[in-house]
Amino acid sequence: MSSPPVPPSLTETERGFLAPPSADLSADHVLLDYLFETDDDPLKAALHLCREQSTALWNRPGVDEDYRPRHAAKLVDLKALEPRPGSRSPRRARMRVAHPEINFGPRIPNLLTVACGEGAYFTPRIDVIRLEDIHFSAGFLAAFQGPRFGLHGVRELLGLQGRPIITGVIKPNIGLAIEPFAQIGYEGLRGGADIVKDDEMLADPPYSPIRERAPRVLELTARAASETGEGKLFIANITDEVENLIPLHDFVHQSGGRHAAVMLNAWCVGLSACRMVARNARVPLVSHFDFIAAFTRVPWHGVSELASTRLLRLAGFDMIIMPGLGGRMHQSHEEVLDSMRACLEPWGDIKPSLPIPGGSDWAGSLKPMLDTIGHTDFSIVCGRGIFGHPDGPAAGARSVREAWEAIQAGLDPATAAFPALRRAWEAFG
Amino acid sequence: MSSPPVPPSLTETERGFLAPPSADLSADHVLLDYLFETDDDPLKAALHLCREQSTALWNRPGVDEDYRPRHAAKLVDLKALEPRPGSRSPRRARMRVAHPEINFGPRIPNLLTVACGEGAYFTPRIDVIRLEDIHFSAGFLAAFQGPRFGLHGVRELLGLQGRPIITGVIKPNIGLAIEPFAQIGYEGLRGGADIVKDDEMLADPPYSPIRERAPRVLELTARAASETGEGKLFIANITDEVENLIPLHDFVHQSGGRHAAVMLNAWCVGLSACRMVARNARVPLVSHFDFIAAFTRVPWHGVSELASTRLLRLAGFDMIIMPGLGGRMHQSHEEVLDSMRACLEPWGDIKPSLPIPGGSDWAGSLKPMLDTIGHTDFSIVCGRGIFGHPDGPAAGARSVREAWEAIQAGLDPATAAFPALRRAWEAFG
Repeated sequence: MSSPPVPPSLTETERGFLAPPSADLSADHVLLDYLFETDDDPLKAALHLCREQSTALWNRPGVDEDYRPRHAAKLVDLKALEPRPGSRSPRRARMRVAHPEINFGPRIPNLLTVACGEGAYFTPRIDVIRLEDIHFSAGFLAAFQGPRFGLHGVRELLGLQGRPIITGVIKPNIGLAIEPFAQIGYEGLRGGADIVKDDEMLADPPYSPIRERAPRVLELTARAASETGEGKLFIANITDEVENLIPLHDFVHQSGGRHAAVMLNAWCVGLSACRMVARNARVPLVSHFDFIAAFTRVPWHGVSELASTRLLRLAGFDMIIMPGLGGRMHQSHEEVLDSMRACLEPWGDIKPSLPIPGGSDWAGSLKPMLDTIGHTDFSIVCGRGIFGHPDGPAAGARSVREAWEAIQAGLDPATAAFPALRRAWEAFG
Repeated sequence: MSSPPVPPSLTETERGFLAPPSADLSADHVLLDYLFETDDDPLKAALHLCREQSTALWNRPGVDEDYRPRHAAKLVDLKALEPRPGSRSPRRARMRVAHPEINFGPRIPNLLTVACGEGAYFTPRIDVIRLEDIHFSAGFLAAFQGPRFGLHGVRELLGLQGRPIITGVIKPNIGLAIEPFAQIGYEGLRGGADIVKDDEMLADPPYSPIRERAPRVLELTARAASETGEGKLFIANITDEVENLIPLHDFVHQSGGRHAAVMLNAWCVGLSACRMVARNARVPLVSHFDFIAAFTRVPWHGVSELASTRLLRLAGFDMIIMPGLGGRMHQSHEEVLDSMRACLEPWGDIKPSLPIPGGSDWAGSLKPMLDTIGHTDFSIVCGRGIFGHPDGPAAGARSVREAWEAIQAGLDPATAAFPALRRAWEAFG
């Protein structure tokens, strides 16, 4: 981006929302990157946004005061872009806003109000706008605990280094009684899954109360760990009303100890409540991506997947399930890789989260995932690919392990002579 | 809408996601209305969505079972529409899905997972989709307490019937120290505002801690009530991390009694946490609309304002601030009126909420609002229109009252000879 030129046509009010030249605001401002479309001059529209987002009326009539130097959101960068084909707005630009942290503090709801509130999204003549990225100061980040376990803590619980983690979503996802549900989870773990989990739709229904389901699945998870000599985890979906989250977390922890993890459908629960659970977490905390497509899907409006992922890591998720690489997930590879990087890159004292790109994967997905991702610090997550395998969940899980073995041996998983893998290819290939 | 025909080309799996003819599912299903675009046959796409949204894998391989009758989301209605001009999807349709409540229960996070989760928003070949409306069963509604005060309770606190409620957002919204902030709020109340409130951006910053600001503003609110003989309210913005909400609510209640109300930037806080506050509320609970434009703005994707408003009333908000009628708010009048109706219409035992369509209004907005809305059960909300009035906040508030008096007298507020109104017209007209 380039520093905005200051045309003489700017009003005195507008000038108060320009970052002073060569000022470094990154120590006590959050930096917000937006893509927007307007029928106004992009510089004027951008300054108007800064004003709406902070101190629109910056003095009292007749009083000699000016709240802009301390409290104004300030335009740091602006870059005009070609208009989007088909847009009714003739102009498009990227902007970076520096918003003073003194206006809101290290609180997620107030941060969201700044970044995605009335100011930014209801600026006159800005028709559509997308929050593309967020950057925090070191001081702001230091106020957040982040993930308690993180990628390395999860790997340690599993005793597993150097290969992707294999997660199975127990299916049929809803309707199944507890005992068969726990049994097929156990079979998946015995067959080679490192983790099995509840579907995002299965929480605490009357036919499968979580306070009965979680202890039974965790009992069989511990047995699978003992029998295989491998670390194993069960992720219980504790998505529920906010008051119930910590009691459910504590119950799952007490039921499963080092074999337990809990999942929250993060945006459905609210990120602040997720942070509250993370602050009190004794087991890894896993997010699922329900609701996000409502604001991420349209590429020129809403909030990017990348920004969402940063907020999830900030809130303290150890494992972040995100829309994955398959075409079904309506994400470009670039978007998925950006989000995965946001999980893993150095970020103050905040631990990395394990990225879990999800969506209809199976043994045959592993090699393309590795080729696209370029490293092994992720989890592949399979539902039907494990629990719909024609020879059952153990064979389903084994098929994913065999795909890894084939890749390690330099073989093509599509043709390698591993029995469960061959059957998976016949069923899902 | 019309019942979908059942073409013989449907597979046995697909047929399991069709509502049985003439079945009334409304007693124990939530009804979800979606608008979607697809390159698939709309009926097949709709059935695929039902499947993804509920029990995608509805039996175990080799086991004679079928979870569809009890757990499947079922297609109730489908209506093909002309494709949207400019869409890359050649087909468009409206659908109604009946989703069994047994799958999730009366919990907001789990409801959002059903309505806006991976299933609905990541169905293969459905490129974009918008949740347009939600309908609950009587039993589901009965599990929610809804607003504690509601429209009538708020009117009772104000002792005010038969005219729109006048709310002022104290400005400058951020930066102002507590004493001048409280003083101008007091002047607005003395001039004729029924309610003054914190801006959505002002919560608990170091220069204006809410535990100092709220008691002082509430003290002056009580004084204004006593001096004018009118009911008066101050709405304190308690938007904060979830753990702090009930303590802050309790503090504001103890500080202000019947003059106190609290605001939450609802989608930033998370609706479940809002419901938690509502369950414990002793003062009216007010929502602000930050974040919603990220998912409401694009009319063919995301979630409608109407659906959002229903959820806010369900969560228990007594007063719902929503994007209003001005062009700046990027809402059609129809959308605003739909949301206002959703606040007010009979809804089981759940009380009506006071709708507050907001956005840069002033005295001159009152008549067009009344003409468009057609009744007086709303609040007009003014920031600059009161606190930016050239003769100060008392005159600003008086200008809105004068506009009401002019309308009552059959005069045109644009020309009626009321002094504060005339000055408002010169400044903002």
